[in-house]
Amino acid sequence: MTPQEFQDNASKNPVSSPQTVSLGLIQMGCGENPQDNLQHSIDHIRTAAARGAQVICLQELFSSPYFCQEENAHFFDLAEPVPGPTTKQLGKIAKELQVVIVASIFERWTSGIYHNCAAIIDNQGGVAGKYRKMHIPDDPCYYEKFYFTPGDLGFQSHSTPYGELGVLVCWDQWFPEAARLTALKGAQLILYPTAIGWLEGASDLENQAQQSAWETVQRGHAISNGVFLAAVNRVGREGNLTFWGQSFVCDPLGRVLARASAEKEEILVVECDLTQIEETRRQWPFWRDRRIEAYQGLDLRFLDEDSSSE
Amino acid sequence: MTPQEFQDNASKNPVSSPQTVSLGLIQMGCGENPQDNLQHSIDHIRTAAARGAQVICLQELFSSPYFCQEENAHFFDLAEPVPGPTTKQLGKIAKELQVVIVASIFERWTSGIYHNCAAIIDNQGGVAGKYRKMHIPDDPCYYEKFYFTPGDLGFQSHSTPYGELGVLVCWDQWFPEAARLTALKGAQLILYPTAIGWLEGASDLENQAQQSAWETVQRGHAISNGVFLAAVNRVGREGNLTFWGQSFVCDPLGRVLARASAEKEEILVVECDLTQIEETRRQWPFWRDRRIEAYQGLDLRFLDEDSSSE
Repeated sequence: MTPQEFQDNASKNPVSSPQTVSLGLIQMGCGENPQDNLQHSIDHIRTAAARGAQVICLQELFSSPYFCQEENAHFFDLAEPVPGPTTKQLGKIAKELQVVIVASIFERWTSGIYHNCAAIIDNQGGVAGKYRKMHIPDDPCYYEKFYFTPGDLGFQSHSTPYGELGVLVCWDQWFPEAARLTALKGAQLILYPTAIGWLEGASDLENQAQQSAWETVQRGHAISNGVFLAAVNRVGREGNLTFWGQSFVCDPLGRVLARASAEKEEILVVECDLTQIEETRRQWPFWRDRRIEAYQGLDLRFLDEDSSSE
Repeated sequence: MTPQEFQDNASKNPVSSPQTVSLGLIQMGCGENPQDNLQHSIDHIRTAAARGAQVICLQELFSSPYFCQEENAHFFDLAEPVPGPTTKQLGKIAKELQVVIVASIFERWTSGIYHNCAAIIDNQGGVAGKYRKMHIPDDPCYYEKFYFTPGDLGFQSHSTPYGELGVLVCWDQWFPEAARLTALKGAQLILYPTAIGWLEGASDLENQAQQSAWETVQRGHAISNGVFLAAVNRVGREGNLTFWGQSFVCDPLGRVLARASAEKEEILVVECDLTQIEETRRQWPFWRDRRIEAYQGLDLRFLDEDSSSE
């Protein structure tokens, strides 16, 4: 073993990895002015850091209203490069407070290519990684296919001083493939910046069923992958949507450790004991038993042999 | 289009497919004598059919105690072919009552090859399909790797007069790949014969967390795939395990439609409105948006580039 190999090996030693991480979730409402929203987020980040948060996750597209309720080319003006002005401002704060910030940004790559991007800003103040939303919705009041080119960076985990972070965004929540691939990349925590709400006119019963399904499917990802998981949702009324808040953190057994309210801004700071991951996967060793040689077909659209695409 | 093609096509017409199916779940305790357990099951099947059940699912290895609590070659005597004596007896009942029965059987294929098998017995009385458990556990008191060769038939859906049935078994419950592939094969309902319980000596808190994780991860599969899902668990104390019952059925939004008790035998008969599947998938079109070109790696064990297998 060369000295470099020894050092690389030692850095993988569980004893030198962080044993706990304090996760901060910023659930907030947004106004029309991006600079005001950014400042509001920074105030919340300072509060979360003062309460001990080390990794702080903002909601999806936190610096603007959820503009995807309509298809309007004017909103492309909101996009910016990543790294860019917003990550620069947040980078200063991250370095000052010695925190990692996960920031969801409307990214302009070039003319005609825009992404729904999440930047991982580390405690040195730089962009340590970025994720471009892979699954893009297009449903009434969520016209994201108009704005966002589907992500091209795949599923990733990002090494930070506070743990291995996987970041996915909103609609990705419904796809077990996304969580699985992110966990297989080494993520200990999967974070989902989110903007999901109730459409005007739906019944209370439908609304409750949707929010419950949303939380349940994500808790399922935590369980099947043995990871911590957090969703950070926006809150409050915008146009025809009432964002349902209820940001939450769950542990590798899917137990909800904290859940924010449905009506108001809230900062959650939750201590996650990362040793639980090893413990859970020893007790329920799902990964040992995956039938990887029998998973052909997961990369196909449909497998019903009686039907055809014609 | 040939007449045959036209007929095949017409049989796929949603108007001619069943719109609802009444699902019967038999949650029971088992004694030492296989013939008694079979007779007990048949009594319950008659009751379920009398209450309207069309598809009746028995629990995992319903005709014997859960022998996998110890590794004892003597228990291979319990194995039998599929089709075989048990499917023959159940076939008579299925035909008489005009029901489909899903029966979990310790299958002997040949000397040295045994499977944890589920037979789909249709209302003609024959074995319309079989599934061999793909994911085999091996944990304290669940020493299944000693008994069962991992399944070789892959993930399937079976056409029955009462709908397209996917069958998976117990430990498969924790693997989103299994549910996904089964749903992609066309299953409208996924059924899980199960034998899961609490180990002697665990705390109430651990017990509650495990049962909750078990139900949650399966509700997650129903949600991400837009299918009905049912788990049929055994109940009662055997050796060091207290089977936790709580068999349940949930709809494509993951809502629990019925749940049996944790302590006693119970027959659930639940009407499933299959039109909800189309409705749910129209409202939340997850399948439209799967990034099938970006799912490479699901057939690998681990993807962390910083680690190695050496």
